[in-house]
Amino acid sequence: MSPLSPEALERLVAALPEGVVATRAETLEKYRHDGANDPTAQLPLACVRAESTDHVVTTMRWATEHRVAVVPRGAGTGLSGGASGQSGAITLSTERMRAVEVDPASRTVVVQPGLLNAEVKAAVAEHGLWYPPDPSSVQICSIGGNLATNAGGLCCVKYGVTADYVLGLEVVLADGTVLRLGGRHVKDVAGLSLMPLFVGSEGTLGIITSATLRLVPAQRPAATLVATFPTVAAAADAVVRVGRDVQPSMLELLDQAAINAVEDYAPMGLDRDAGALLLAQSDAPGAARAAEVELVERAFEAAGALEVFSTDDVDEGELFIQARRLALPALEQRGRVLLEDVGAAVPLLPDLLARIEAVAARHGVAIPVVAHAGDGNTHPIIVVDTDDPDGEAKAQAAFVDVMAAAVEIGGTITGEHGIGRLKRDALPTQLGPEVMTANRRVKDALDPLGLLNPGVLL
Amino acid sequence: MSPLSPEALERLVAALPEGVVATRAETLEKYRHDGANDPTAQLPLACVRAESTDHVVTTMRWATEHRVAVVPRGAGTGLSGGASGQSGAITLSTERMRAVEVDPASRTVVVQPGLLNAEVKAAVAEHGLWYPPDPSSVQICSIGGNLATNAGGLCCVKYGVTADYVLGLEVVLADGTVLRLGGRHVKDVAGLSLMPLFVGSEGTLGIITSATLRLVPAQRPAATLVATFPTVAAAADAVVRVGRDVQPSMLELLDQAAINAVEDYAPMGLDRDAGALLLAQSDAPGAARAAEVELVERAFEAAGALEVFSTDDVDEGELFIQARRLALPALEQRGRVLLEDVGAAVPLLPDLLARIEAVAARHGVAIPVVAHAGDGNTHPIIVVDTDDPDGEAKAQAAFVDVMAAAVEIGGTITGEHGIGRLKRDALPTQLGPEVMTANRRVKDALDPLGLLNPGVLL
Ligand SMILES: Cc1cc2nc3c(=O)[nH]c(=O)nc-3n(C[C@H](O)[C@H](O)[C@H](O)COP(=O)(O)OP(=O)(O)OC[C@H]3O[C@@H](n4cnc5c(N)ncnc54)[C@H](O)[C@@H]3O)c2cc1C
Ligand SMILES: Cc1cc2nc3c(=O)[nH]c(=O)nc-3n(C[C@H](O)[C@H](O)[C@H](O)COP(=O)(O)OP(=O)(O)OC[C@H]3O[C@@H](n4cnc5c(N)ncnc54)[C@H](O)[C@@H]3O)c2cc1C
Repeated sequence: MSPLSPEALERLVAALPEGVVATRAETLEKYRHDGANDPTAQLPLACVRAESTDHVVTTMRWATEHRVAVVPRGAGTGLSGGASGQSGAITLSTERMRAVEVDPASRTVVVQPGLLNAEVKAAVAEHGLWYPPDPSSVQICSIGGNLATNAGGLCCVKYGVTADYVLGLEVVLADGTVLRLGGRHVKDVAGLSLMPLFVGSEGTLGIITSATLRLVPAQRPAATLVATFPTVAAAADAVVRVGRDVQPSMLELLDQAAINAVEDYAPMGLDRDAGALLLAQSDAPGAARAAEVELVERAFEAAGALEVFSTDDVDEGELFIQARRLALPALEQRGRVLLEDVGAAVPLLPDLLARIEAVAARHGVAIPVVAHAGDGNTHPIIVVDTDDPDGEAKAQAAFVDVMAAAVEIGGTITGEHGIGRLKRDALPTQLGPEVMTANRRVKDALDPLGLLNPGVLL
Repeated sequence: MSPLSPEALERLVAALPEGVVATRAETLEKYRHDGANDPTAQLPLACVRAESTDHVVTTMRWATEHRVAVVPRGAGTGLSGGASGQSGAITLSTERMRAVEVDPASRTVVVQPGLLNAEVKAAVAEHGLWYPPDPSSVQICSIGGNLATNAGGLCCVKYGVTADYVLGLEVVLADGTVLRLGGRHVKDVAGLSLMPLFVGSEGTLGIITSATLRLVPAQRPAATLVATFPTVAAAADAVVRVGRDVQPSMLELLDQAAINAVEDYAPMGLDRDAGALLLAQSDAPGAARAAEVELVERAFEAAGALEVFSTDDVDEGELFIQARRLALPALEQRGRVLLEDVGAAVPLLPDLLARIEAVAARHGVAIPVVAHAGDGNTHPIIVVDTDDPDGEAKAQAAFVDVMAAAVEIGGTITGEHGIGRLKRDALPTQLGPEVMTANRRVKDALDPLGLLNPGVLL
């Protein structure tokens, strides 16, 4: 795209209220990186902090007229570089679009994208309702970003992912057209189902400006189980066994390195010698909960658990979940990491984890693992050894090989974080040429000039 | 499209094994109608009864070469005319593609499209597993048709629709390209989410040749409640009250005319004088079931139920469900009907049903109603009065107005049956020009020659 004249940018600034368009370097610096901390991230040309759908429409019409690329951005916690700044491109931030309206009668909430996930949860909790999707970043990520990445989380193993809660969407296309899809009703097959196409599209098809989300009754208090295992393999086996018999509302894994990182960061007395730790919850009603807890315990023991601890105390349970949530920040303290997000069908989890261990050994890199184990989604965390001159190269090679391992067993290179910029090169290996072509055709159909987040996903 | 030479058709016949391509009028007659019994349905040019994905590929390559339209067809029970024959077009039936493979470890089943829904349920039940989606036509509709229409059913109020169970799809595009999407794993955000786009696309984007479906543990035995109400309005109010407090596993409505049609057809002692009947089930575990039943009872009573009956006897419960399933066939006995499928958010159900009554009164036509009330999806059944010379015209006018009523309150003209040919003209009123254009762009991207089911949906 040819360089933009300063007058053109001035026209955008003038078309929007004072303070909406940021152009100073010191402000733009905040929009350079997202959670991926991609070293190649750049300073955007300007940042539009839209306050309404109209502002988004104005921006996209202007972008189309001047052929300027636009990077949509929520809270910037994304882990695939999908919101990182690009020189010459506008970053369109939805952080100021924060309206929320709960409708208890239909158990729905209409939200603008800028609200944080935790804020949505809090707003609906006032009405005794619950919005389940709970990425570990729940306190810091926006609902728009969750929709654009189809975010997962800890309770997905029972309650599903973001896409499972979307009833309606308002989306602004690259040319400024506003699409209103779905509504408050739960069943609708009128027309092609375009709505799920935008969910998880990482800002490449349109900008989500409002969403109608399905809510469920407040979650029942959950019982929590913590168990240690001699090896990752034994823990993975336990996960497979649980999957056969029970439907826990959470089933997370931390390996020894992750346990130790958490203990270093915020000590809570976890067993540093255990090969792996599983954290499970059951929120079944009444007596069914005790029955579920027992089934999980039995599965853990059958797989060779060293110790199994369970509690009905909700606060105590929350402490363990906090520890799980801290695993990633704790590991990031140790230096630069490359975060993976590979997944496979649950029965293949032991195989996947063994292959990851093999990759670590082959390249001589440390790859601690945390995992949403219950749905086969793992986060191997490749630690870059900065003391080793080949450290970066080894880590990059391991990054590629971990993805290859997942593809080899029919799994995915990304269960929830998205392709973004970091995994773009690996996507064709998973999808194959036919599906890649179909992806491109759909992208071209909705964004023919390729203005929305170029270089991301495709 | 220009007329096809007889030689061209011969080439298709020769390219496929003996007996795959039917060309005799007597055979083709079976492929003229689907469940909509659209009087304008035509005899297809030929019918390919594909036995494999390869046969579908061969057919689509041939169709692309010769610019011949193709109508995909499952079991032909669809209610929107989406599978009805078109002269000059090939009907591609998947009835012979019947492989099924259950994988209990990952709780998934891989099925070819020709299997009936009930056959899938039976195959997985052998492993103690359950495939929930249960259209009333469960015994006669194919899983491919269910996927292509995103079929709903009775347990959707708790367990969701067909789309909620799809993990993987194999689809043949118009040009013969085979797409393999997803797999056995439950979480995957690699690339645009194309899979949900094909679900509910009514054969307009591709031919589904295999699907990987998510299964859940066998359903617990359910308690059944039957309640009568003085009016439809009171029953609708009861549904809204239930929706606030409980999550039943079924919540169906029959109005007085539907009750009487069922009683005429297969007498079972339902109260012919009741204004409406609600049928609910709870499959909550253990003691939670009794608690749920009580909450439903209280909601029914608060809304003015005449009589409430509940039973834990599974067979007795099944009898009532049978009665519900018979409602449509029973009403069809009375002569030609136009079947609606309009829906709205549950709190708007009383409003929607009142508007439907007003339409019936305004046009002087009978419109009995059955409904998947728990998710706001109603089936007003417009009875054509063949004794009245204006009967057909009045019924058609009512058909249009019922859809308009749903759109007016922000609902949908089709909750589960699809647009097909019968509702195509009404689609733009619901979607609006922007969403219609987006639909067309996506259709053109995947089927640029417009060969797949032209005239259906768009
Ligand atoms: C400590 C930590 C833990 C995490 N745990 C999880 C987890 O458990 N599960 C999980 O799924 N993720 C997790 N994440 C990743 C991240 O929080 C999610 O991807 C989240 O959904 C991103 O939201 P965001 O508002 O920060 O989006 P951003 O980072 O701002 O953007 C993410 C992507 O969405 C696009 N986008 C943002 N808003 C819009 C919009 N309104 N319209 C269109 N496109 C838009 C962007 O272009 C970008 O491609 C974690 C991150 C951190 C830092
Ligand atoms: C008595 C009765 C009760 C019913 N109750 C319900 C109900 O409760 N809920 C509900 O949702 N529906 C219901 N239906 C409607 C119907 O059974 C469903 O729409 C069903 O999903 C159609 O399946 P089929 O195999 O008969 O599809 P068909 O009628 O053969 O086709 C339906 C549509 O799907 C397309 N199609 C079929 N197979 C494929 C394929 N492999 N690839 C691509 N496209 C394909 C066709 O082109 C057509 O557009 C009912 C029908 C009857 C007769």
